[in-house]
Amino acid sequence: MKKLVFIRHGQSLYNLENRFTGWQDIDLTDNGLNEAREAGMVLKKHGYIFDVAHTSLLKRAIRTLWIILHEMDLMWIPVQKSWRLNERHYGALEGMNKDQIMARFGEEQVNLWRRSTNERPPAISLKDHQHVLSDPKYQDLNDIDIPFTESLKDTEERVLVYWHGQIVPSLKQNRRMLVSAHGNTLRALVKYLDNLPDDGVMSLNIPNGIPLIYELNDDLKPIRHYYLCEDGEIPEGTIPQHMDLDDPENCEWIG
Amino acid sequence: MKKLVFIRHGQSLYNLENRFTGWQDIDLTDNGLNEAREAGMVLKKHGYIFDVAHTSLLKRAIRTLWIILHEMDLMWIPVQKSWRLNERHYGALEGMNKDQIMARFGEEQVNLWRRSTNERPPAISLKDHQHVLSDPKYQDLNDIDIPFTESLKDTEERVLVYWHGQIVPSLKQNRRMLVSAHGNTLRALVKYLDNLPDDGVMSLNIPNGIPLIYELNDDLKPIRHYYLCEDGEIPEGTIPQHMDLDDPENCEWIG
Repeated sequence: MKKLVFIRHGQSLYNLENRFTGWQDIDLTDNGLNEAREAGMVLKKHGYIFDVAHTSLLKRAIRTLWIILHEMDLMWIPVQKSWRLNERHYGALEGMNKDQIMARFGEEQVNLWRRSTNERPPAISLKDHQHVLSDPKYQDLNDIDIPFTESLKDTEERVLVYWHGQIVPSLKQNRRMLVSAHGNTLRALVKYLDNLPDDGVMSLNIPNGIPLIYELNDDLKPIRHYYLCEDGEIPEGTIPQHMDLDDPENCEWIG
Repeated sequence: MKKLVFIRHGQSLYNLENRFTGWQDIDLTDNGLNEAREAGMVLKKHGYIFDVAHTSLLKRAIRTLWIILHEMDLMWIPVQKSWRLNERHYGALEGMNKDQIMARFGEEQVNLWRRSTNERPPAISLKDHQHVLSDPKYQDLNDIDIPFTESLKDTEERVLVYWHGQIVPSLKQNRRMLVSAHGNTLRALVKYLDNLPDDGVMSLNIPNGIPLIYELNDDLKPIRHYYLCEDGEIPEGTIPQHMDLDDPENCEWIG
């Protein structure tokens, strides 16, 4: 039996300010730092150990990982970082807050972007895209890989390239792994693992800073999954599953 | 022209307590944390950027690196960690303080261990060695690679395996690199780069937390080297070169 642990980064400043983040490289709030610390302490308390960790190129996920590795005395393990684990690219919505977006585009359109698999928000401008291209973070990417905007499907596809290329081979070698990433990239992995339909994943929210454990068989099919908290395993239903993703109001309960 | 930056970790608790550290995994003091922060700020101020970083498996070097990467907004770069960059293994001297060692072995013997290239301190016990073997940090090593004790020459040899295998290929690809490591591993690299004789390196001390810059030509031969401080480059002579390595009293000046 293999165990794989997912962690969604702790609260970021944009979460707090009710703004779409996406590829914006926004750091954790004090609350987010504490969430990461608690995740590390819980994993340590329950005897988890990792051989390798994976994370995105965004500092809210990297910092969450670093804090966990510090708490677990595992700073020395190899860490692989990839843009393919970055949050969904929200195009021109990035940096805008929910009220602004509602006022400008209307509720119906906003819900369509959030709830449908194939809808892409408006693309960022050519100038903003050039700005991303010139970010040294993305210097090794082909220009064509750097999105102007992404549908949920686009995000899923590039995450699964990483899953099959980097995570699966490592799982087959029985490496114990922690993946520190983002709401939509983790949602894509959960959707793939649990073979969920498009409309089954829309209501799935992975809370910030709570380790999500997948037990997999040798064929990498999930046996079961659960969240890990101070007192041990939490049955899935206990954590609200139907919260509105990216709505910071709904993150309060884990504050 | 290629630039390579070395950083010796900030002050650790054992530095402060006047104890031999070696492979003991001791964290930074508050002073050490500040040294790392200052190193990061200085590198950023002078426009440095890195494509990749290398460090040991010991947390005082990893934490120094993490703090620097945080200060430079480079948390996303790949980091390679290797036991080959670990501090020299001081055998049974590890954890003992200078007074204890002097009292037990006498000044002449202690100076021999410190000043000669081939002398090894007393080995750790089989039990202590088993303890190291069972440390997950070293799980991927061959047992024979895990030392009971090391001469300076032993340390040099295993560091140079890393230099030729990991650093040289990356330098040839013009990757800009930061190496966060330890007094003796950095000394070994400086000795190799500057082609210093055995007795020429004994008096060489690389201070904690001050970036040491090497400019190399295309054949990876040093053109010049200097320390980087707040006000820019520091000619080599300005930083004391003849301090007793590992003597915390001599580290006060950079406090």
